[in-house]
Amino acid sequence: MTNPRTIYDTDLDRTPANHTPLSPLDFLRRAAQVHPRRTAVVHGAQRYDWATAYRRCRQLASALQRRGLKRGDTVAVMAPNIPPLFEAHYGVPMAGAVLNALNTRLDAATIAFILEHGETKLVIVDREYAPVVKSALSQIKRAIQVVDIDDPEGPRGDPIGSLDYEALLAEGDPDFDWQMPGDEWDAISLNYTSGTTGNPKGVVYHHRGAYLNALGNVLTGSLPKHLSYLWTLPMFHCNGWCYPWTVTALAGTHVCLRRVEAKAIFDAIEAHGVTHFCAAPIILNMLINAPAGVARQLPRTVEVMTAASAPPATVLERIEKMGFHVTHVYGLTEVYGPSVVCEWHAEWDAKPSSEQAALKARQGVRYPVLEGLMVADPQTLAPLPADGQTIGEVFMRGNIVMKGYLKNPKATREALQGGWFHTGDLGVTHPDGYIELKDRSKDIIISGGENISTIEIEGVLYRHPAVLDAAVVARPDEKWGETPCAFVTLKDGTTATEAEIIAFCRDNMAHYKAPKTVVFGPLPKTSTGKIQKYVLRDQAKAL
Amino acid sequence: MTNPRTIYDTDLDRTPANHTPLSPLDFLRRAAQVHPRRTAVVHGAQRYDWATAYRRCRQLASALQRRGLKRGDTVAVMAPNIPPLFEAHYGVPMAGAVLNALNTRLDAATIAFILEHGETKLVIVDREYAPVVKSALSQIKRAIQVVDIDDPEGPRGDPIGSLDYEALLAEGDPDFDWQMPGDEWDAISLNYTSGTTGNPKGVVYHHRGAYLNALGNVLTGSLPKHLSYLWTLPMFHCNGWCYPWTVTALAGTHVCLRRVEAKAIFDAIEAHGVTHFCAAPIILNMLINAPAGVARQLPRTVEVMTAASAPPATVLERIEKMGFHVTHVYGLTEVYGPSVVCEWHAEWDAKPSSEQAALKARQGVRYPVLEGLMVADPQTLAPLPADGQTIGEVFMRGNIVMKGYLKNPKATREALQGGWFHTGDLGVTHPDGYIELKDRSKDIIISGGENISTIEIEGVLYRHPAVLDAAVVARPDEKWGETPCAFVTLKDGTTATEAEIIAFCRDNMAHYKAPKTVVFGPLPKTSTGKIQKYVLRDQAKAL
Repeated sequence: MTNPRTIYDTDLDRTPANHTPLSPLDFLRRAAQVHPRRTAVVHGAQRYDWATAYRRCRQLASALQRRGLKRGDTVAVMAPNIPPLFEAHYGVPMAGAVLNALNTRLDAATIAFILEHGETKLVIVDREYAPVVKSALSQIKRAIQVVDIDDPEGPRGDPIGSLDYEALLAEGDPDFDWQMPGDEWDAISLNYTSGTTGNPKGVVYHHRGAYLNALGNVLTGSLPKHLSYLWTLPMFHCNGWCYPWTVTALAGTHVCLRRVEAKAIFDAIEAHGVTHFCAAPIILNMLINAPAGVARQLPRTVEVMTAASAPPATVLERIEKMGFHVTHVYGLTEVYGPSVVCEWHAEWDAKPSSEQAALKARQGVRYPVLEGLMVADPQTLAPLPADGQTIGEVFMRGNIVMKGYLKNPKATREALQGGWFHTGDLGVTHPDGYIELKDRSKDIIISGGENISTIEIEGVLYRHPAVLDAAVVARPDEKWGETPCAFVTLKDGTTATEAEIIAFCRDNMAHYKAPKTVVFGPLPKTSTGKIQKYVLRDQAKAL
Repeated sequence: MTNPRTIYDTDLDRTPANHTPLSPLDFLRRAAQVHPRRTAVVHGAQRYDWATAYRRCRQLASALQRRGLKRGDTVAVMAPNIPPLFEAHYGVPMAGAVLNALNTRLDAATIAFILEHGETKLVIVDREYAPVVKSALSQIKRAIQVVDIDDPEGPRGDPIGSLDYEALLAEGDPDFDWQMPGDEWDAISLNYTSGTTGNPKGVVYHHRGAYLNALGNVLTGSLPKHLSYLWTLPMFHCNGWCYPWTVTALAGTHVCLRRVEAKAIFDAIEAHGVTHFCAAPIILNMLINAPAGVARQLPRTVEVMTAASAPPATVLERIEKMGFHVTHVYGLTEVYGPSVVCEWHAEWDAKPSSEQAALKARQGVRYPVLEGLMVADPQTLAPLPADGQTIGEVFMRGNIVMKGYLKNPKATREALQGGWFHTGDLGVTHPDGYIELKDRSKDIIISGGENISTIEIEGVLYRHPAVLDAAVVARPDEKWGETPCAFVTLKDGTTATEAEIIAFCRDNMAHYKAPKTVVFGPLPKTSTGKIQKYVLRDQAKAL
């Protein structure tokens, strides 16, 4: 189609008056301008307001520039959800640099790989992780500036650098005249995928996407101004699903949480009027199974966004009875965290609670800021029928899809091929347009030529009264090709045999889908609480 | 500053997978996908859902293209707040065309000027305005396609074209494969300023700004999903402050209102569960002064955004007692309607109600989507002290500043000079950063070398128990240069003399600021409820 110039294209150009790069950095400036005395951050006995938050972030940005950090340099942070990691979400990009929040459960070799691959110039390390980062640095030839955080709520220990975080801030100008990014497509952060096989890939976020998904969370959650947000979800996980920016846009309060434990969560809800948090289903499980005296009925409804894996219906039912209200979202590192939401319909309230939970376990519909979502044929990208049956790959497109993988044009090209982001997740579209994940491509079990969804089997296992945690993988089989193999952790004080578990599954699903093997014991997990299926697959192979 | 290429600028380009033009048109598509059966529009006995809304807008877009409308063509609509005007906010830009919603109070000559200047190709006219549009069209040489709306809630009358609006829709494909704009900088609408002097100017909005201010309203008002929004504010006024897009982004309900009358408003609140509306202070006044039997206590709090002029403290106090909760915003046509908000602080709740009202009468702080707001020297653009005293011009910058004025590069250049939009409004910045308007440049009175704010005098006049409406302008004076001249409308059944009014003012403000003249009678108003001060200035001159 030709696009001839019209009267609306003439003498109506972008100027500094009417065009500004979109960036979440402006949220901090506005919170400080409008609500300088409102509490921005709570951490143990510490508590500071938005004027202070802004001053500290400007100091950080200024100090980083004075130490030679430039546009496009990488600054890594290895810390739990404490104020310096929150401040890095602003101070680092305000210096023009790019934030790489490191997964705190990584081993030294992986950290060394990431610091090398990201060409990190400076790393900020919490005392608790000093040993592993020290070991990682010893594997790197080049010198990297090291800043130590001495968190009053954290453990003691020796610094590994020569500069303390507070001393670094003291080097910076609290009135630093930082600049917005020159282009909203500029990188704001770098997040390495956990990568169950091979080296992790560096997902690059830009200012535009961070701004938009920050607002996407507001629209999706109907988040109010001045919410009190508890930091259960790691900030290193997709930049805390963009909540360091979302909560700031609303001039809310960031309630830090160094250690994610049931008691600490219940205490914070009571002490700091927490209204919202995000958490993997594993955390919901932890709250449900908290010992008497720790678990308690909530003083008011607390809104929870959960994702990472489909929460089993029983978990959803039980957590809501305690006073939590759960919104189920779905996303990936490549789409700034959550990008799909199981948006609720008022008429579903009238359905039986098990049916409600089944509806809520679906992944749902696109965020308002994700312009495209479909289940399609992985080869042709042709959308598949919305029949709730036909399994295809989940594809996404829009402004909250990553810039790409750092220094990996081949992987970027493959991931974004055909104008869609290839999630690698398998799912179906229901007749109402809601998608439901059936499995990761590599998690599906093909037994006797039939596809079996491991998620479906896990859903049944979680309904067994003795099951605390469950994961299913393929076990190689001469006759069937593969058969389902279940790994199960039982609740304290309960017992169950392999035969009982298998019988329970056969009673509750098609017989061919029931596990042929059940292994009892604790499950290996990634740092973000995802079960490491590749470990289980190896175990299943070795059986 | 040089900007060398970094690792983050390499092989990480925009692709169709990760970059989509921002446009509010996507909100409609999503509302129809996710909430097809939810009520989208209510109008009298009519009521239709989001699936229907989307189908009708696609039909409109398709029919417009079939009738030859192309990208950048202008489609004008002359109608009150009824479904076809709402539909035009989507159907017209979905065809690539630009929507020009006409002020329904305009005279034929002005309409003719606008249709000529905007090079309108097609005009859609409600039966009530057929005579004035017919007269306007008779003054235009070229042929313009005319579509008549036959609103069942409107008056009878003869069509002036040969095509009915519903017949036009019937020509269109309900599954029309419309396209998002090629560029988010493309024009979405054209809004002529009311222009108290000279020809009106055509303010051009783009998709990016419309998208962002739609979300700005959500953030500013903490608007929830599925709100029920009453259409008191004309959609022709800055595209209804972007609410045709805001309410759709939240899959709320648009409750139409053909005639803005107190009874109709109270009835709609009751019948349709209205939660939100926007209105000029004049409407709030109308609700306060509604006769017994019409006015009633609200069943629940209704949120109101008000602007257009600073609401007098007494109006604010009285409307809130009825159950309305008022948020005061400020903006201009050039910034997509509201762009500044008097954001409330919880600690203000403890202040006496008169002080609260005075705080709320201030215009406030920038919207989160407006990146810059300042009171500055009109010549140098240097910001002025935040002392609540120093009067300067209000300047704005950011993504919700217009593209510019259509076919008027000189006015565009002047308005956006120096990287800021020049509002022409005068104000001060308070120590807390909140701005307060003191006057339009041309409204300030200079008496004996002292600047006198007409807004301040009006604020005092509104506190007089007999005053319904008040406006103050300069009256030429040999001795003083100018003196304040008040025009006052008294409430039914009350009386007051000129001497009493002047004495009341002298008791409540600096004597030199009190009016020297008081004229009683109705006040001339623009179609949007603004008092036409230029008419009063002429009257004052002739006294």
